[in-house]
Amino acid sequence: MMRTVVDLNCDMGEGFGHWSYGDAPDEELMALISSANIATGFHAGDPNSMNRVVSLAKAHGVALGAHPAYNDLQGFGRRKIVATDDELVNDILYQIGALREFGRRYDLPLQHVKPHGALYMEAAKNEDLSRHLVETLQATSPDLILFCMGPALTYDVAKRHSHPVVRELFADRDYGDDGMIVFTRKGAAADPQAIADKCLRACREGKVETESGKVIDIAFESICVHSDTPGAVEILSAIRKTLTDNGIRIAPARDVLAEEPSS
Amino acid sequence: MMRTVVDLNCDMGEGFGHWSYGDAPDEELMALISSANIATGFHAGDPNSMNRVVSLAKAHGVALGAHPAYNDLQGFGRRKIVATDDELVNDILYQIGALREFGRRYDLPLQHVKPHGALYMEAAKNEDLSRHLVETLQATSPDLILFCMGPALTYDVAKRHSHPVVRELFADRDYGDDGMIVFTRKGAAADPQAIADKCLRACREGKVETESGKVIDIAFESICVHSDTPGAVEILSAIRKTLTDNGIRIAPARDVLAEEPSS
Amino acid sequence: MMRTVVDLNCDMGEGFGHWSYGDAPDEELMALISSANIATGFHAGDPNSMNRVVSLAKAHGVALGAHPAYNDLQGFGRRKIVATDDELVNDILYQIGALREFGRRYDLPLQHVKPHGALYMEAAKNEDLSRHLVETLQATSPDLILFCMGPALTYDVAKRHSHPVVRELFADRDYGDDGMIVFTRKGAAADPQAIADKCLRACREGKVETESGKVIDIAFESICVHSDTPGAVEILSAIRKTLTDNGIRIAPARDVLAEEPSS
Amino acid sequence: MMRTVVDLNCDMGEGFGHWSYGDAPDEELMALISSANIATGFHAGDPNSMNRVVSLAKAHGVALGAHPAYNDLQGFGRRKIVATDDELVNDILYQIGALREFGRRYDLPLQHVKPHGALYMEAAKNEDLSRHLVETLQATSPDLILFCMGPALTYDVAKRHSHPVVRELFADRDYGDDGMIVFTRKGAAADPQAIADKCLRACREGKVETESGKVIDIAFESICVHSDTPGAVEILSAIRKTLTDNGIRIAPARDVLAEEPSS
Repeated sequence: MMRTVVDLNCDMGEGFGHWSYGDAPDEELMALISSANIATGFHAGDPNSMNRVVSLAKAHGVALGAHPAYNDLQGFGRRKIVATDDELVNDILYQIGALREFGRRYDLPLQHVKPHGALYMEAAKNEDLSRHLVETLQATSPDLILFCMGPALTYDVAKRHSHPVVRELFADRDYGDDGMIVFTRKGAAADPQAIADKCLRACREGKVETESGKVIDIAFESICVHSDTPGAVEILSAIRKTLTDNGIRIAPARDVLAEEPSS
Repeated sequence: MMRTVVDLNCDMGEGFGHWSYGDAPDEELMALISSANIATGFHAGDPNSMNRVVSLAKAHGVALGAHPAYNDLQGFGRRKIVATDDELVNDILYQIGALREFGRRYDLPLQHVKPHGALYMEAAKNEDLSRHLVETLQATSPDLILFCMGPALTYDVAKRHSHPVVRELFADRDYGDDGMIVFTRKGAAADPQAIADKCLRACREGKVETESGKVIDIAFESICVHSDTPGAVEILSAIRKTLTDNGIRIAPARDVLAEEPSS
Repeated sequence: MMRTVVDLNCDMGEGFGHWSYGDAPDEELMALISSANIATGFHAGDPNSMNRVVSLAKAHGVALGAHPAYNDLQGFGRRKIVATDDELVNDILYQIGALREFGRRYDLPLQHVKPHGALYMEAAKNEDLSRHLVETLQATSPDLILFCMGPALTYDVAKRHSHPVVRELFADRDYGDDGMIVFTRKGAAADPQAIADKCLRACREGKVETESGKVIDIAFESICVHSDTPGAVEILSAIRKTLTDNGIRIAPARDVLAEEPSS
Repeated sequence: MMRTVVDLNCDMGEGFGHWSYGDAPDEELMALISSANIATGFHAGDPNSMNRVVSLAKAHGVALGAHPAYNDLQGFGRRKIVATDDELVNDILYQIGALREFGRRYDLPLQHVKPHGALYMEAAKNEDLSRHLVETLQATSPDLILFCMGPALTYDVAKRHSHPVVRELFADRDYGDDGMIVFTRKGAAADPQAIADKCLRACREGKVETESGKVIDIAFESICVHSDTPGAVEILSAIRKTLTDNGIRIAPARDVLAEEPSS
């Protein structure tokens, strides 16, 4: 299947207090994407950054997403905390609500939620957590789109509950043969055009080349570029240009889902 | 003016993690009040306590209020932090949103917001902060009732902006001749019936006796009892019985405001 | 082997800010024990509680111990955080140092360190973490006694490094057949004399009866009673009286180790 | 009076978790200074950064200082918290001890303490706080040097108590006519040589030019350059070269004090 429309998302607002994160200016990133995942204070972000980034999303017509995490500012949400599913879902609700309120301030409805870091990976493997989260979202906000990886159990659970769900293609990460991303933090800066070509092929053919050189199937509705990837602005620019030059439209996840035949 | 209907509010969920606060069981308090001010994580409370207390409010038909505070868990929100009005309003929005989300879970809309401790007192004296808060609430939720003391600048600002506002009578605190509450943490436990009688007189005559023995005017729409006041359950029971026996109805703040001639 | 001297330790200062923990007054507990494990701010405790409890230990001639934990105030240090050994040892050093400084204030040297909750259990199973901790303590304070359970890998590692180490008997917990404690939080309050008799038998015979009724060997130099166990004061009083009536002396861990034939 | 030896200090380790602070590499800064003020976790810094920066200080022969702050990570310790002197001194002790422990690890004794940001300014104006701090340091570590500004009450109090104290010259800040620093965060990067010349004049003549062009007396034993000042490495290099070329030696504060006639 060829994609004719795709979402382009980026993690935003991942500083804290007076610390900033990544070299790419938020304004430039925001001008290039269609959905923003905004840090909600548990791994990064604070009420002031949330306010600023949400107003920026509004100004650029970017759809709003919450990026909740484990409550671990020091570890940037990359360290699993062995908590109960109830505790984790309560943590997620708290963060979703906090961000949603800033959306109210700027008249920008919440489009999606994307768990961050270790919590994203935990939900991918933990069916009970994914189910508890999806069932809770069905009660609080049945149209709030959940972001995950294609091979994640989160996806299966959401589909079974007919909850709106979006799979991500990680533009700036390598893939293993199992379709999971590989955490190689390579020193070499990525080539923006090579990444854009990878995205184009994935949209056209539904294929991605893994670290080992194998070509595997990949299904997705949104492309993710991390704001701290060196050259994030250049990478997003290359993706946007390459896709649109080839007739693939960039649009918020909710529009992508609305145009899916099966949705 | 005689009050025929009054709200009865209580601060709830002021434990943190495995620590609880006050001896009165939440269930018993909740059965006696009409509005709950729920701690939102900055001075007390956490996502788990918020979830639990909101579900309890729903079960008892108690109206939901956010109780945002300075970000100072160790100081229980009783220590002023010299921050800008922008920072404080962002902190308040964050906390309001977090609580509102648990209200969504239990289908319980947010009725009011009552700043906690040092933030409540700061807003009372700081007209700029009160104005910034009221103007922000007008944008995010024009029907969200703001709680304050009668002599607070917060009240004047809200009235000027035609924002719904409720004044509190502090049942378990002493008053100074200026109408402000006096922070005397007396050892002696209060007599529930004496407190109930004070509330009844305040409802009937609009008068309260100060620490010095003077009788001053007091205007209010809600009576506050603190959950950590020794004998809080007995005090609330006495107030409820005494008022209803004397034809004064207990109802959530929104109902009290709806019945005001001037509202 | 019969014990003629044993340490009696208790976790202390496990409130936070204005929240207290357990019903037993610190003063009464402190009068009954020989070693105090003082919460150092990561799972409980704050600079003010540390100051207060250390001064109390000084006043009662109780030996000073640090009770470091995972950095998780909300979870009371009972939730494992998947961090590196380096991170955890740095966390432990930070907390040890903070407490040691209050000891300087009251001229009370630091006797021991006892990891708290999930960190205590993690070290028991994780030989690398135990080794990294012991090697670090050898560099910073070779005479700082490490507390652990008898079957813990922590004990083996400390012994191999000739680092002073003390094993605990948990007076108010049940044992499994493997010599590990069983986390049954029973509702029924424990009988102080039954606990004291268990301690006496363990001192005299080196035996303890498990949950299943089996009798197993147990080796220890210190008896632990948790300050939040209902009736902690009565339990400690019973243990102290029963042991001393039977010729077993209560003394700080450093004195117990000094009298060991093998030390 | 002409200075022939002066300390050169810099705030270090002011990142948090995965966030770094300032562009100057710690290694390059450390090679240029004689005393390091290391963030201790309340406004910035964490156990991992403390461990890393202390080891770096050891490697470069730089004297170790604690940089305690208000407990306000989000506000970077720049917002006053209205706490009691007891609370603040306990906070300071906690942070001093935590850092001192990393010094034990690398066999690097603690030389000094310099309160950070708003706490530094509060102590300067608050004689009671300064007195409580100095008296406490006299009990815990009578040789721990206290850093402050010349016009600060902290200085007078320390002198009266015969507690070792060092006054700072702020190389990268402008002075008002009252000898206090002026918080002008100018956009323009400072000229390293102009700053070095200012330091040289201050050492030789004991004079500094204020913002208004007036020349005032200034007394100091240490020169401070902030690590986040743009061009910090170039500024420190220029100061070091200019001073040493002119016969003024750079040495840790304890050596500077030891060579004072009056000390």
